[in-house]
Amino acid sequence: MIGVFDSGLGGLTVVRELIQKLSQFKILYFGDTARTPYGTKSAETVTKYAIENTEFLLERGAKIIVVACHTVSSTAIPVLKERFKGIPFFEVVTPSFKKALRLTKKKIIGLIGTRTTVESGIYQRLFAEADPEIKLIANPAPLLVPLIEEGWLNKPETRKIVKKYLIPLKMKGIDTLILGCTHYPLIKKVIADKAGKRIKLVDPSEEVAEEVCHYLEENAELKKELERDGEPEIWVSDLTPNFEKLAALFLKRKVTLHKVSW
Amino acid sequence: MIGVFDSGLGGLTVVRELIQKLSQFKILYFGDTARTPYGTKSAETVTKYAIENTEFLLERGAKIIVVACHTVSSTAIPVLKERFKGIPFFEVVTPSFKKALRLTKKKIIGLIGTRTTVESGIYQRLFAEADPEIKLIANPAPLLVPLIEEGWLNKPETRKIVKKYLIPLKMKGIDTLILGCTHYPLIKKVIADKAGKRIKLVDPSEEVAEEVCHYLEENAELKKELERDGEPEIWVSDLTPNFEKLAALFLKRKVTLHKVSW
Repeated sequence: MIGVFDSGLGGLTVVRELIQKLSQFKILYFGDTARTPYGTKSAETVTKYAIENTEFLLERGAKIIVVACHTVSSTAIPVLKERFKGIPFFEVVTPSFKKALRLTKKKIIGLIGTRTTVESGIYQRLFAEADPEIKLIANPAPLLVPLIEEGWLNKPETRKIVKKYLIPLKMKGIDTLILGCTHYPLIKKVIADKAGKRIKLVDPSEEVAEEVCHYLEENAELKKELERDGEPEIWVSDLTPNFEKLAALFLKRKVTLHKVSW
Repeated sequence: MIGVFDSGLGGLTVVRELIQKLSQFKILYFGDTARTPYGTKSAETVTKYAIENTEFLLERGAKIIVVACHTVSSTAIPVLKERFKGIPFFEVVTPSFKKALRLTKKKIIGLIGTRTTVESGIYQRLFAEADPEIKLIANPAPLLVPLIEEGWLNKPETRKIVKKYLIPLKMKGIDTLILGCTHYPLIKKVIADKAGKRIKLVDPSEEVAEEVCHYLEENAELKKELERDGEPEIWVSDLTPNFEKLAALFLKRKVTLHKVSW
């Protein structure tokens, strides 16, 4: 099984991409809805939660782990790789960074994300190592997650707040924008509209799914071992009617959520 | 010591009121910033967290517990009272209900709060028992907490969203409005402005502090035992620079936060 986890249900945008690209694999998802969101919390706390989530997925049979959360991808990957040696980990930062590097012409790249993601400085480091000429203009956009979770996907308030977050990035002349949170693909149209035609968007959900595909093509044995049809199995640490609505919104189809007992 | 807890830092608005009214008492506060917010989570999960928070305060010497969180007050009080027999509990729902009952003339009362608070139905039950003629018009206002935590206390977006949440309440002719979340006192001016002069506001932080005062006046022995000067001691389950900024915003003065190690 392919294990996928996120702080909540936003990571289901990654599951949607994985299903489209890898329909012959069974996906096991864990959303930590009892402690969501992660993007406002410290790197230390986020790392602790990420370890627990990974343990849950491995115990239930996951053979590879996809970290479908930008905050965890920005802060906890070295610890996870050290702690769970031998397990292939995929995260959303590296493939998004690579895609932005390929897309930019002006070498001015924008980033929006949670506060913890932006303040982790991981994108700044990656771009500085790859090409010191690249300018990264980053702006935390902490209200987008609650707006999306409220289902306000195309309301005037959402459009206005997106516009506000993008102003400082557009003023610096970015030509590429990284959507640094797995929630954001749900308002990609609004973001594209406010960014304008000249700015290309990098969607982390698409990029990480692409990376998992490549990896499995190059690892035929693991691929064979993992291959098994079936509906994605979705586990959460807390269950409310609103979480069920959200899951359907993110996955674009009705799903059954299973609550972990603890 | 007077123990106070909340899902995060919003409950510091209650601490501020307690300090004003009861400056001779030492206050011990716990904010569950590692699992905040509670208002989107299930009653079962909120109750579990509330038990753990109460245990923390009692272990550190609290003699009475003030639940400075509307979500916990709406869902977990019977379980807390049963589990911690003999400990006086104060919560924000009952005093807010009593105040609204005294204020209303038209018997049409409005309530805004988190989704879990509104959907708990506790205010509906209390008013129905007290006076079946009273109409309670409730509207969940889930975006106000993130807006306040972002420090957007008087931005046009906040004003617009407050207005949007109040429209259905005003259309039903409410004359009293319960601020059903300990975050809301921070945007009381915006709410008062959008509600208009004819609607009276009930501030749960003021009401619960008042109730604690009355109780201590009637319980002279406990009062004497509790009396001890000192700065409030503020504990959190997660610490980020943003939480420190928020704490200063809620308490209206600079404070030191202590992180629980776990």
